[in-house]
Amino acid sequence: MRLMLTSLGLIALALPLQADPLPSWEESASKAAILDFVAAVTDPASPDFVPEDERIAVFDNDGTLWAEQPVYFQLLYALDRLREKAEADPSILTSDALRAGAAGDLGALMAGGMPALIEVVMASHADVTAAAFEADVAAWVGSATHPTTGLTYEQMVYQPMTELLRYLRDEGFSTWIVSGGGQHFVRALAEDAYGIPPEQVVGTMGETEYRVIDGVGQIVKLPDVAFIDDKGGKPLGIDRNIGRRPIMAFGNSDGDYEMLEYVTTGEGPGLGVILHHTDAVREWAYDRESHVGKLVRGLDDAEAQGWVVIDMAADWETVFAEVDGG
Amino acid sequence: MRLMLTSLGLIALALPLQADPLPSWEESASKAAILDFVAAVTDPASPDFVPEDERIAVFDNDGTLWAEQPVYFQLLYALDRLREKAEADPSILTSDALRAGAAGDLGALMAGGMPALIEVVMASHADVTAAAFEADVAAWVGSATHPTTGLTYEQMVYQPMTELLRYLRDEGFSTWIVSGGGQHFVRALAEDAYGIPPEQVVGTMGETEYRVIDGVGQIVKLPDVAFIDDKGGKPLGIDRNIGRRPIMAFGNSDGDYEMLEYVTTGEGPGLGVILHHTDAVREWAYDRESHVGKLVRGLDDAEAQGWVVIDMAADWETVFAEVDGG
Repeated sequence: MRLMLTSLGLIALALPLQADPLPSWEESASKAAILDFVAAVTDPASPDFVPEDERIAVFDNDGTLWAEQPVYFQLLYALDRLREKAEADPSILTSDALRAGAAGDLGALMAGGMPALIEVVMASHADVTAAAFEADVAAWVGSATHPTTGLTYEQMVYQPMTELLRYLRDEGFSTWIVSGGGQHFVRALAEDAYGIPPEQVVGTMGETEYRVIDGVGQIVKLPDVAFIDDKGGKPLGIDRNIGRRPIMAFGNSDGDYEMLEYVTTGEGPGLGVILHHTDAVREWAYDRESHVGKLVRGLDDAEAQGWVVIDMAADWETVFAEVDGG
Repeated sequence: MRLMLTSLGLIALALPLQADPLPSWEESASKAAILDFVAAVTDPASPDFVPEDERIAVFDNDGTLWAEQPVYFQLLYALDRLREKAEADPSILTSDALRAGAAGDLGALMAGGMPALIEVVMASHADVTAAAFEADVAAWVGSATHPTTGLTYEQMVYQPMTELLRYLRDEGFSTWIVSGGGQHFVRALAEDAYGIPPEQVVGTMGETEYRVIDGVGQIVKLPDVAFIDDKGGKPLGIDRNIGRRPIMAFGNSDGDYEMLEYVTTGEGPGLGVILHHTDAVREWAYDRESHVGKLVRGLDDAEAQGWVVIDMAADWETVFAEVDGG
């Protein structure tokens, strides 16, 4: 690396320090609360100073880092793959849930509740190596398009949140995803979309099996759920994969309630932030009545808990990331 | 931090680059194999070059980073705590295994096999917060003494391995523990003993529960096993907590076989290393017939698999770490 010590070089180096680290955020109370918290925990002279290795920030994924309507994107992936499999071999459609899924009938599928959804997801996710599965998901995320926006899923990542992730890492934080979605699914996109490496993705885990295939040891996905990383499971997932209490947590639904509570009730500083989907024009507006990302307790308790609520419509200047090919 | 740019300061800074990074290792074939591998994967001009974020090294703990005779130290911890609890309330000794454990009768306890051991461990490990448990283990590791050596457990860490861990981190590796021992137990000592943070400790996991106690969200340990990180479970634990294939693996027993196989059968470079306990004078000599750290397949297959075998008696100049208070 070449050091530029000319005066021009020095100016170029100094500029980023003065620039707004969150340009897609309006000058709102939520932005100020985040910046103030980061300033306090990174200032060695502050009573709230936190050393770098304890600066851990955790993020829900669906509805917090990217969109989640009309249903979780992982389900849309599963439906795409189920339809392809059924075209090749219709005899795999052995239940109402699988037939509804292959027909793209979301209404009939949702009527079957969580068991129907799990059946569809497992049909498309199992009996494949983790490596092959992740490669397939990564290809889908960058090429398949969303049913109503027409954007690729990669383009439905929130620009303000990718700025926030980068800003926190610049300030010495490690940034983790703690998602109710499948761990392998989220890993397949986390590095490209968010700059988050595989080891910093916690999620719902399927059972797996170690198998030597053609002389190579492989992780094979099985059609059973091993650990559900949602609600009270999120602090447990944090304990399994991180092993200490984070100091910042970002979520958008009641599935994140316990994670925010865990992060903000420990000793020392802790900030909990809820993204409230209020933007029916640029994204979606939903909370108490939504079948995905339902948010009731979080809204009711945010003030008493001291949690920050982001009003998407008012607080974000930009919503979706600008990605090449959009 | 004050920068020393005097000529003396520069010499002091330059020296470590030339010094032997593994001074407690004899100039053996195993040392050369490790140094050669690290040189190849860190040299940008080498065909085997591996970028820093993929330089992942995994280590078994018991018998690889510290001793494991006459039984795993976690069991000795459990027995200490069980005895104390039984002194306060003898009515807790409701089974032969618990009575044998409280009496320190290892023979009778081992005769009960794995169920007896798990019963004793669970009796001392459950219904406590993870934070309180880890604090208690940390205190025990630094103060309790081993039944035959009289050393504290902290003093029974292998000096050559702590040098190796430091060396690998200096070379851009992340160093992980992948242990059959309990994840919370190993975390309690990993940072002090090995410089390994909690998030880089994978181990056998007990069931846990999220509970709000006196207004604070806590992880509570329950008396059931959730995941056994041993044998074929080690690659699965690596997948859950790391999410990519490591390039170096160190173990000492057949419980590490699949982990070494997983690491050395992938695409690209991979090095598997077995520590063979051959030193009855300074440590212990055991392999095929031992009730802990049994090593049969590893010895039989090492040559065919291309794994390096460390001969402790011949290859290590020093065995145990020198820790203050020894």
